[in-house]
Amino acid sequence: MFYHDGKLQYPVRVDKPNPQFAKLLQQAIGGVEGEIRVCLQYLFQAWNSRGPKKYRDMLLETGTEEIAHIEMLATAVALNLEGSSMALKEEMAAANPMVEAVMGGRDPRHILSAGLGALASDSNGVPFNGSWIIGTGNIASDMYANVHAEASGRVLATRLYELTDDPGMKDMLAFLIARDAMHQNQWLAVLEELGGPAVNLPIPNSFPGASQVEDFAYSFVTTSINKQDSLSTTGRWASGPSIDGKGQFNIREGAPMGQEPALKATDPTTHAQQQQMTDAADDKSFLEQAKDFITGQ
Amino acid sequence: MFYHDGKLQYPVRVDKPNPQFAKLLQQAIGGVEGEIRVCLQYLFQAWNSRGPKKYRDMLLETGTEEIAHIEMLATAVALNLEGSSMALKEEMAAANPMVEAVMGGRDPRHILSAGLGALASDSNGVPFNGSWIIGTGNIASDMYANVHAEASGRVLATRLYELTDDPGMKDMLAFLIARDAMHQNQWLAVLEELGGPAVNLPIPNSFPGASQVEDFAYSFVTTSINKQDSLSTTGRWASGPSIDGKGQFNIREGAPMGQEPALKATDPTTHAQQQQMTDAADDKSFLEQAKDFITGQ
Amino acid sequence: MFYHDGKLQYPVRVDKPNPQFAKLLQQAIGGVEGEIRVCLQYLFQAWNSRGPKKYRDMLLETGTEEIAHIEMLATAVALNLEGSSMALKEEMAAANPMVEAVMGGRDPRHILSAGLGALASDSNGVPFNGSWIIGTGNIASDMYANVHAEASGRVLATRLYELTDDPGMKDMLAFLIARDAMHQNQWLAVLEELGGPAVNLPIPNSFPGASQVEDFAYSFVTTSINKQDSLSTTGRWASGPSIDGKGQFNIREGAPMGQEPALKATDPTTHAQQQQMTDAADDKSFLEQAKDFITGQ
Amino acid sequence: MFYHDGKLQYPVRVDKPNPQFAKLLQQAIGGVEGEIRVCLQYLFQAWNSRGPKKYRDMLLETGTEEIAHIEMLATAVALNLEGSSMALKEEMAAANPMVEAVMGGRDPRHILSAGLGALASDSNGVPFNGSWIIGTGNIASDMYANVHAEASGRVLATRLYELTDDPGMKDMLAFLIARDAMHQNQWLAVLEELGGPAVNLPIPNSFPGASQVEDFAYSFVTTSINKQDSLSTTGRWASGPSIDGKGQFNIREGAPMGQEPALKATDPTTHAQQQQMTDAADDKSFLEQAKDFITGQ
Amino acid sequence: MFYHDGKLQYPVRVDKPNPQFAKLLQQAIGGVEGEIRVCLQYLFQAWNSRGPKKYRDMLLETGTEEIAHIEMLATAVALNLEGSSMALKEEMAAANPMVEAVMGGRDPRHILSAGLGALASDSNGVPFNGSWIIGTGNIASDMYANVHAEASGRVLATRLYELTDDPGMKDMLAFLIARDAMHQNQWLAVLEELGGPAVNLPIPNSFPGASQVEDFAYSFVTTSINKQDSLSTTGRWASGPSIDGKGQFNIREGAPMGQEPALKATDPTTHAQQQQMTDAADDKSFLEQAKDFITGQ
Amino acid sequence: MFYHDGKLQYPVRVDKPNPQFAKLLQQAIGGVEGEIRVCLQYLFQAWNSRGPKKYRDMLLETGTEEIAHIEMLATAVALNLEGSSMALKEEMAAANPMVEAVMGGRDPRHILSAGLGALASDSNGVPFNGSWIIGTGNIASDMYANVHAEASGRVLATRLYELTDDPGMKDMLAFLIARDAMHQNQWLAVLEELGGPAVNLPIPNSFPGASQVEDFAYSFVTTSINKQDSLSTTGRWASGPSIDGKGQFNIREGAPMGQEPALKATDPTTHAQQQQMTDAADDKSFLEQAKDFITGQ
Repeated sequence: MFYHDGKLQYPVRVDKPNPQFAKLLQQAIGGVEGEIRVCLQYLFQAWNSRGPKKYRDMLLETGTEEIAHIEMLATAVALNLEGSSMALKEEMAAANPMVEAVMGGRDPRHILSAGLGALASDSNGVPFNGSWIIGTGNIASDMYANVHAEASGRVLATRLYELTDDPGMKDMLAFLIARDAMHQNQWLAVLEELGGPAVNLPIPNSFPGASQVEDFAYSFVTTSINKQDSLSTTGRWASGPSIDGKGQFNIREGAPMGQEPALKATDPTTHAQQQQMTDAADDKSFLEQAKDFITGQ
Repeated sequence: MFYHDGKLQYPVRVDKPNPQFAKLLQQAIGGVEGEIRVCLQYLFQAWNSRGPKKYRDMLLETGTEEIAHIEMLATAVALNLEGSSMALKEEMAAANPMVEAVMGGRDPRHILSAGLGALASDSNGVPFNGSWIIGTGNIASDMYANVHAEASGRVLATRLYELTDDPGMKDMLAFLIARDAMHQNQWLAVLEELGGPAVNLPIPNSFPGASQVEDFAYSFVTTSINKQDSLSTTGRWASGPSIDGKGQFNIREGAPMGQEPALKATDPTTHAQQQQMTDAADDKSFLEQAKDFITGQ
Repeated sequence: MFYHDGKLQYPVRVDKPNPQFAKLLQQAIGGVEGEIRVCLQYLFQAWNSRGPKKYRDMLLETGTEEIAHIEMLATAVALNLEGSSMALKEEMAAANPMVEAVMGGRDPRHILSAGLGALASDSNGVPFNGSWIIGTGNIASDMYANVHAEASGRVLATRLYELTDDPGMKDMLAFLIARDAMHQNQWLAVLEELGGPAVNLPIPNSFPGASQVEDFAYSFVTTSINKQDSLSTTGRWASGPSIDGKGQFNIREGAPMGQEPALKATDPTTHAQQQQMTDAADDKSFLEQAKDFITGQ
Repeated sequence: MFYHDGKLQYPVRVDKPNPQFAKLLQQAIGGVEGEIRVCLQYLFQAWNSRGPKKYRDMLLETGTEEIAHIEMLATAVALNLEGSSMALKEEMAAANPMVEAVMGGRDPRHILSAGLGALASDSNGVPFNGSWIIGTGNIASDMYANVHAEASGRVLATRLYELTDDPGMKDMLAFLIARDAMHQNQWLAVLEELGGPAVNLPIPNSFPGASQVEDFAYSFVTTSINKQDSLSTTGRWASGPSIDGKGQFNIREGAPMGQEPALKATDPTTHAQQQQMTDAADDKSFLEQAKDFITGQ
Repeated sequence: MFYHDGKLQYPVRVDKPNPQFAKLLQQAIGGVEGEIRVCLQYLFQAWNSRGPKKYRDMLLETGTEEIAHIEMLATAVALNLEGSSMALKEEMAAANPMVEAVMGGRDPRHILSAGLGALASDSNGVPFNGSWIIGTGNIASDMYANVHAEASGRVLATRLYELTDDPGMKDMLAFLIARDAMHQNQWLAVLEELGGPAVNLPIPNSFPGASQVEDFAYSFVTTSINKQDSLSTTGRWASGPSIDGKGQFNIREGAPMGQEPALKATDPTTHAQQQQMTDAADDKSFLEQAKDFITGQ
Repeated sequence: MFYHDGKLQYPVRVDKPNPQFAKLLQQAIGGVEGEIRVCLQYLFQAWNSRGPKKYRDMLLETGTEEIAHIEMLATAVALNLEGSSMALKEEMAAANPMVEAVMGGRDPRHILSAGLGALASDSNGVPFNGSWIIGTGNIASDMYANVHAEASGRVLATRLYELTDDPGMKDMLAFLIARDAMHQNQWLAVLEELGGPAVNLPIPNSFPGASQVEDFAYSFVTTSINKQDSLSTTGRWASGPSIDGKGQFNIREGAPMGQEPALKATDPTTHAQQQQMTDAADDKSFLEQAKDFITGQ
């Protein structure tokens, strides 16, 4: 069960409202790198957790913290929008076409749909999408998803930080940037506690190695037909022991081991064109086959 | 530029077509863990790459390999659907309501929209979505995204492996499972080559540490009000050196440092209700303010 | 800021796990009538609230309660999925085609994507969508949205109640049904406190009545050309005082007051076909105009 | 069956074309508050109606009227776009970076995809989504949905009215604002005719009250741990008779009645990590259990 | 403006309700090949039409007819769902797991969300999406889109026809199949009236041929590196006069004419990793550059 | 299987980077008319092809070419974004509100999410959607879809061509415009090779004409009630031989042949309101029926 105290985790102050920055902040609320995503992602991972218990407990702590981050950002959006409607009215009424351009960098739904408030969408107005909530039930896979979520979230926050000179906004972002640093460390700490790459990889580590096509489990496959211009085989991934310590990296030139696909002829009840009704393998006359089908009805 | 040879990277064989398994395979084509996603993700990361060149080259190699994986899975879907339309017709005509149930586990669009072919959607028929293509321009963030993509992809493939007894399908999946193992190692090899967590973290490492609110960069913040039942502070993330080696993990009890938000009163031109038109800070009579607005028009 | 205690608001018990019911429950989590929607809807309405303060406070209370409802339902899904993977493996291996049908009523992503856990999607696997979060900034409009959200949520819960005989599930749903009853009353209580329809309508009540085309503000417009078969003008909406007490309902036969639209001729730079490049009003030869454009380049 | 006469329900005139206003108008066509939504919503409610017949008849009347509103708005968009492509070409060619900004407030797809015509999307270019069509089959639930749809639609129209000084556009919007006023009254008239809140609530009123957990059907549950700063319990919803007249509002402090969830251990065939394969309830060694699974294959 | 008469364009009769067929019918309502799509597509094309007037008039006729087709199919869905809820309740209560499977082929939202009515979504429950509405403003492009829409719509209808033995449903589909035949002819008649391929192609025909890279306007480019197995150059498209009569088809082997892309080094303010901050062209030490950036702050 | 050479099919050069044009180019990458769509559409059509083999071979050639077009456009976006972040920082810091407007025409996610790179979304930031991939399995239907895809793609490219004066961008677009011309001819060549409209129509031509309601297969149905103002019956589609040569076009006035729909009364377990529980056909008292249901529980 959940509780609240009505206060912000960290102060949110906007010295000079800027509806364009409000639009940018939406990416951190409802974008794929945003706080609704990490909030629901950690909560669902907790709720679906089947042990050990301490990971569930920990995910619940941080998932709950993230609600407070959505709250901070929604407040920041609302504060950045203050006063902007009236200004817009005047701008739209102006004769100068340049003045109208001020509408440009805004999210029109901040006025039209929300009456100067935050939305559950990204910086282009694309709604938050539940498909972004990752929880596979495999803790190593999920921790890597979480590291990325926090990494892309922190990258986003530093970009927002660069794009504002408002001291209040910079201060709020500096806090969120710090929390994202901690959370990156936190999810990697889980991976370390679980034994690190040597134990965790390949994910899932519960699938017997012998059941995969082992020959291809440590090969860097090239698909380039212009190898003299490519540096792709000069990296750590092309030779030496694999990261999981269970194989040796090697290079394998891409080449087909499989057949040219030959599907069975079209099923007449799916109503392809008559001209298609032929056996793909030998291209025999489709007219006979199709005629049979049509006259058979 | 891209080329093809019309053959499959690895043999695809279906011993006993199963339209229900065709539906499950769609998750590996058009799902969030699927091959369209990793294919486009690696290609976009390559195309957007601003150096060093060898990472672009390498991403292009593997992005191109993934097209062949979509090809294999689409072929597998088409083969699993062979013969299923006619059978369905008979089943639907049967009097026995149980027989009708056979339709249950199928994707109806395999017949209705694709005429017994693969779709660009997931196992529930939800279309592939471009928002899943991650490429932040920060290589460490992207590599963690890629590790997760391959981890969840391999988890998915092992689950599909468990759900079929078709030897051909098991063989194809055993190959894809091996490739996903390599690719996990591959992306982690990039991270190792770049210096590992001590150099890479916190991502982005180009943001000066002094500019974040440092006090909170290594604190595990608890939000539980029932601490006696929680194991959340017993893990690696709660004490000891941080993973990036730049701080010490510590525990901090969650508490608000910020204010209770107080937004300015509603802007009359956004047409809230008259009753709302009051200064939120002091709740003074909204009627006066609203009356001014209405009569002022 | 937000907190949690790790316990469920009300007991969740599943006496006989049923993966098909898990699929149905998803509608109450990630569907348009579901708990993620009401949770985020009330929280965004609170965070965007510009007074009076007591409505913000109240929305925050109930928005926070709804997180606990998502938690209960996610737990119910996870419990209903227990044991279902192993069973499925056996079923898929069976020779009997009828047995395969058991997969029918399941969400395949419960296994494939979530490893027997809940998803942020509806009962068809369609992801939660942020566009469902309604918060216009007009409290009367929002309260009616909330009444409907709780009404459709309660309708959904009663349908789920009808579709299960599991005593644990029935008990959980009986609790949620009661909460939805309260919340319907709660949002209507706000509307009553604000003065009821006579004060609130038409929403927004801050737009001067004189500025609308008053003649049409209380007319039921018919569009039927088969009036003898229609009962549409026999209701409360066709005569008598309007609900807001500001007019008299009347019936008005639908008829065009506007012109037949005539847009200007195609702009050549939009590259319509040459044949379209004519003035729509007089259909003069498009060839001349198009020729001018082409030769002018 | 449906018919048309090719004329507009009300005159649509644009005195000074403004492509930025065309973008804003899209919200009223393809947005969640827009006319495609109400049009299809009322038509689907009519088509799915199972009596009494007069409500079906009435929904059909108004659903048909709404097609004419889409028509008016699409015409308004097309008129606002006239002349804008040529102007844009000149602007883009200008050296002054400020001039380029004029592109800002436009929907680029108005030119790129529609050749200066309307789109089936909202003011951010997000496509109309069928999930917004609400028709539960419960008439009271649907009428509240409809009241909200018209309320948010009228709020939107008044905001658009504020954002333009074009007399033609103001006149068109003044007509739509009036129709939305009528439709709000209309849906509330249905609710009154059905008996009002005392009969309708709680929706659905066909579920026996005794089957819900009655104790919680009239309680305002608080989740705040900072009660001294909250006004949430001072409203109409916290005491006195409930709106449906079937209970007394009361205040109940939020507290968990349920257990801490404990899911069964991970199913090995879902391929979590080996380290997770433990009984969540007692945290016994996962290694033994995982080893059994792996070696058992 | 639009009108209705409350009757169906063609009789809709369901002899034996079948909730599984109701699910399949949804594809013809809210699917990409469905009637909502063609209805709105033709209406938007009409509303956006800038001449000649007769095409606008004609599109309006057929767009209006399509509303009646949605109406027929929605009615068909509702009729197919009759009686299915009660049956389901009994099935769910049965002990036999096979019986539960009957839920399989159903759309759960037909009960849960619509109370046994039609939805604005496809046969997998994916909502209708406004991005499917095509209207480019170029009449030839749009007519080909319309031909395809009717072709895929008729293919869908014939598949539905194959999948039912219900005489009422077969009769309704036989009518829709006939209308789709007419509409294919109708859109092609427009293309013929406009002069056929020789006049219309390449679309848009208002772009001066000399402004394109003419050398590539009639070349079939091969990308195969396995030409001996390919029949791709044996078709009509590889030699002879082009369809538009303006060139000769020829075969051209795919080969890059462009450079290997070399983007500029990363912009430090986008916060890539420090290790990336190098000039992609010469791979000079990124550390110096990154150091400058960091210390410069 | 697929290969690459790391070079561009045609040179991509940007003489003067323009982030606003980068935004417009996104429509050609991830829009409904864009290259990801045609690439995946042709590849899926090839992979699902069931003969004759030469069409599969040919689709694979062109599908592979289209990957190179995505590559060119993604490179063009990245080049157009170079230098734009730094500029933006300065603009945002400027005091002049007009300067801030420069942000207007940009896709904020180009900076926030991609670090100055291309995205898999359209010019409004709406993500690519897999539902746009058309492959019905009927080759004639698919070829018409492909003709439209290339026609709308070429229309889009010519509009982009009009909107830039950058010589490099104009050159790249002139190449893509030529390829789209070829591809239109190519798909129409398939239709000609298959026998043209007389053989192909009505699509699918494998459905026996006698099974449709033949009377309506060549009738232009009018729905206008204002015939004197309409030119809709003056076109090629209203008289003369049909395009497929199998009938004569004729005009038929729209009129209902079907009944007024009368659905059965509400199923009580779907929990409509009690007041609805009546037989729609005779409107008998719903109270008795509802009472039975309630008391029967």
